[in-house]
Amino acid sequence: MSLKRWKLTIEYDGTAYNGWQCQDNLPTIQGKIEEAIEKFCQQKIRIQGAGRTDSGVHALGQIAHFDLDYGDRAISGFELTKAINAHLIHETISIVHAEEVSSDFHARFQAKKKLYVYKILARSAKPSFDKHRLWHVKYNIDVKRMKKAAQYLIGTHDFSSFRASECQAKDPVRTLDNITVTQEAYDRFGGQLITLSFRGPSFLHHQVRNMAGTLKKIGEGRWDVGRIQKILKAKDRKEAGPTAPPQGLTLVEIEY
Amino acid sequence: MSLKRWKLTIEYDGTAYNGWQCQDNLPTIQGKIEEAIEKFCQQKIRIQGAGRTDSGVHALGQIAHFDLDYGDRAISGFELTKAINAHLIHETISIVHAEEVSSDFHARFQAKKKLYVYKILARSAKPSFDKHRLWHVKYNIDVKRMKKAAQYLIGTHDFSSFRASECQAKDPVRTLDNITVTQEAYDRFGGQLITLSFRGPSFLHHQVRNMAGTLKKIGEGRWDVGRIQKILKAKDRKEAGPTAPPQGLTLVEIEY
Repeated sequence: MSLKRWKLTIEYDGTAYNGWQCQDNLPTIQGKIEEAIEKFCQQKIRIQGAGRTDSGVHALGQIAHFDLDYGDRAISGFELTKAINAHLIHETISIVHAEEVSSDFHARFQAKKKLYVYKILARSAKPSFDKHRLWHVKYNIDVKRMKKAAQYLIGTHDFSSFRASECQAKDPVRTLDNITVTQEAYDRFGGQLITLSFRGPSFLHHQVRNMAGTLKKIGEGRWDVGRIQKILKAKDRKEAGPTAPPQGLTLVEIEY
Repeated sequence: MSLKRWKLTIEYDGTAYNGWQCQDNLPTIQGKIEEAIEKFCQQKIRIQGAGRTDSGVHALGQIAHFDLDYGDRAISGFELTKAINAHLIHETISIVHAEEVSSDFHARFQAKKKLYVYKILARSAKPSFDKHRLWHVKYNIDVKRMKKAAQYLIGTHDFSSFRASECQAKDPVRTLDNITVTQEAYDRFGGQLITLSFRGPSFLHHQVRNMAGTLKKIGEGRWDVGRIQKILKAKDRKEAGPTAPPQGLTLVEIEY
């Protein structure tokens, strides 16, 4: 017997799934990967993700670990990746990389930083592509206003105003290392793709989507830039903007 | 009565359609747009596209024109765009821009340059996103080899080796103004996204896909760079590489 711990880097389009975490009788990303592992090695194995993602949220670099006893046979990360992916062929889930790690590696507890990206398309015409990968907003957005407001969120704050009522974290204080706001042309007629990046050690439930929904209100000019300070101080979810829809959000990278 | 000619810029994900051109009982992009126009103005109107695209091929800047008598009412390009798009809500087709043009504008006959882009993803793991928007190749591709080979295709040549047997053009001579080959990281584990751009006044049927299929053979190292010259000289479709699959191709822009 030789138990080995594997670290998986996972990419998924979350559109078709009820989020990351296993749920009875509902398709989830964790569930599909566990089924694929079972088909390949005939063992029921539970994988541990770095963190949950909501239904409809995507990932380029979700991380999970699991232990596998593959008997006396040696298996490489490349072979393991191919073997699991072979059973994910009909899913929008792909193992991008698998590597053996020490038995004390933990995908969730050892995650040091997470990078999330939220994409907004600002133009009148609906998108033909990427409908499930961005938030389509029909009005112009002033990125400068968003950038200014974002500065107030960077640092260590009580983010009670930006967390979901169901959030189970004991402490609402979180640290945001950085937020960047960039824009690029999406078409030749003024359509703008706005990308918000959020980097920090950890986030509260819905925190990124609630920050994105609030920054959008400010970018549209509906709310003043300075309002973000009042929202933070209020420590009241009702003061912040609406939760931005899940399809604009992607978990890009997790650092260990 | 006031007949006005309109120029439409159209974006589509071609995955769900049998190409651009109308066909009885099959969903086509032209057909869906004509249905949408009819729903909005209660007139059966034929639109003239700049050129056909094959089933599964996409566009960011397809152009079409049509004549509309909207009675005494004035309608702006913005209103027309919104009105047509309202009837395309369930399609992956979007009118990005509509502008009034002079009555002698012709989308097909006055097109001066076309820009096509072909995308190849080179990595072992299947893509979770963009599966319908790129050609997934499981081997490494040497972009330098592709760049060298592409130089031989630029200029005016008899492209018989690169045209479909069904191609109806009388003259197989075409001019390629430019081909560019670029690569960028697609993930953090060596996956490469390769973008081939082809610009010229006009193209033969399947010419871009056949050039892409041939350049890929050379990029993989299966064929020598110099073979592209022999293929051109042979004027024989059997000498060139396979037709690259449609989903990697996008009609990006048409210049007038």
